[in-house]
Amino acid sequence: MVQVDPKTRLRRHPDQGSHSRSDLDAILNRAFVGHLGVLDKSGQPFVVPTVYGIGQDCIYLHGSVASMSLRKDLQFEATFVVTIVEGLVIARSIFNHSVNYHSCVIYGELEEIADPEDKLEGLKAISEHIAPGQWDYARRPNSKEIRKTSLKRMALEKFSVKSSEGPPSDSVGEDSLLDVWAGVIPLWQVRGDLVADPDLREKIFPPAHLEGFLPKGVES
Amino acid sequence: MVQVDPKTRLRRHPDQGSHSRSDLDAILNRAFVGHLGVLDKSGQPFVVPTVYGIGQDCIYLHGSVASMSLRKDLQFEATFVVTIVEGLVIARSIFNHSVNYHSCVIYGELEEIADPEDKLEGLKAISEHIAPGQWDYARRPNSKEIRKTSLKRMALEKFSVKSSEGPPSDSVGEDSLLDVWAGVIPLWQVRGDLVADPDLREKIFPPAHLEGFLPKGVES
Repeated sequence: MVQVDPKTRLRRHPDQGSHSRSDLDAILNRAFVGHLGVLDKSGQPFVVPTVYGIGQDCIYLHGSVASMSLRKDLQFEATFVVTIVEGLVIARSIFNHSVNYHSCVIYGELEEIADPEDKLEGLKAISEHIAPGQWDYARRPNSKEIRKTSLKRMALEKFSVKSSEGPPSDSVGEDSLLDVWAGVIPLWQVRGDLVADPDLREKIFPPAHLEGFLPKGVES
Repeated sequence: MVQVDPKTRLRRHPDQGSHSRSDLDAILNRAFVGHLGVLDKSGQPFVVPTVYGIGQDCIYLHGSVASMSLRKDLQFEATFVVTIVEGLVIARSIFNHSVNYHSCVIYGELEEIADPEDKLEGLKAISEHIAPGQWDYARRPNSKEIRKTSLKRMALEKFSVKSSEGPPSDSVGEDSLLDVWAGVIPLWQVRGDLVADPDLREKIFPPAHLEGFLPKGVES
């Protein structure tokens, strides 16, 4: 199913890379915003941050992507990247400073979803990916909203996953003798307490699924 | 200096947008990883996450960008996007769920930096942007490392800045009458304690500038 073609072949650090769907899911499941690269009308590269949902064999893209003026006359494969930064790598030499991260890249054509049922399925996937429980709690999209929503799909066929972890790589060689500290500054995301809409009607309390909810990318 | 051309014209929410350099800097200063969109050899869009440094009138890009096989026969403007996610917007309707964020988009040609002095200046800008103080503390790049490093520059001429903040927009209209909680789940980044390289020689302690240092994107 996964095509390792010249585009997804892992070039720089093949030892740190993977083409397995479970490795891909591990990253997609940990974040909720990715960056989509497309061609605009004049054939120039364009990048837009966007939320996503995970389907059986595709990801769903929504939001500003939908309103973008994409190149239609020219067939192209979009690129979707999700990056999770986990730490700054502080080395003995400037040259070996780096960032610890997990990232994935997905390539594929952006397919417009037209059927209202399919749209609803995609919207549910996005909603449940970002804030699980809200689909059954908040008001679902009505037919007018579904019509207004433009939703796209990218097949999960061509992708690669890369990670960089651990301490800096200059603990061997001459630099290891320097009187210079080296290590990692860990970084992670946290969530704050719920902030109620100031216009919320009285005596409406947050549902249980939001109280304890840890959004993607957030560790307890 | 800032060109508001069709590409950087703010389309979707012009009220939330800006073309001012100080607004741009406010975002560039708060993060250290962005996503670069380019054309690969076959003219397809490609996105790569990368660190950056801020110069007087340009940003410096480094790392995997340098090793990418870019389209050379075709002139193109790269796109560089920095996105800071600040919260999940929980609305009364699924349709009005969104994300609070700040982001900027920069367009421009990727200019290769060849001169060793210019390279050193760019490397310093990146290093001081990511981990201020390390340039004067760690071992600086030697001439061999400078030669091995490929560094690119993008002029800060065409850019736009966008933000979305505050509670959901469905506190007016029919939905405001629903018995559904609405508000924001704030998100932010934190840093952990320094983790020393397990191979660090004995009795080397972290320098003061790292002890209290808050990386970009991290709030105290």
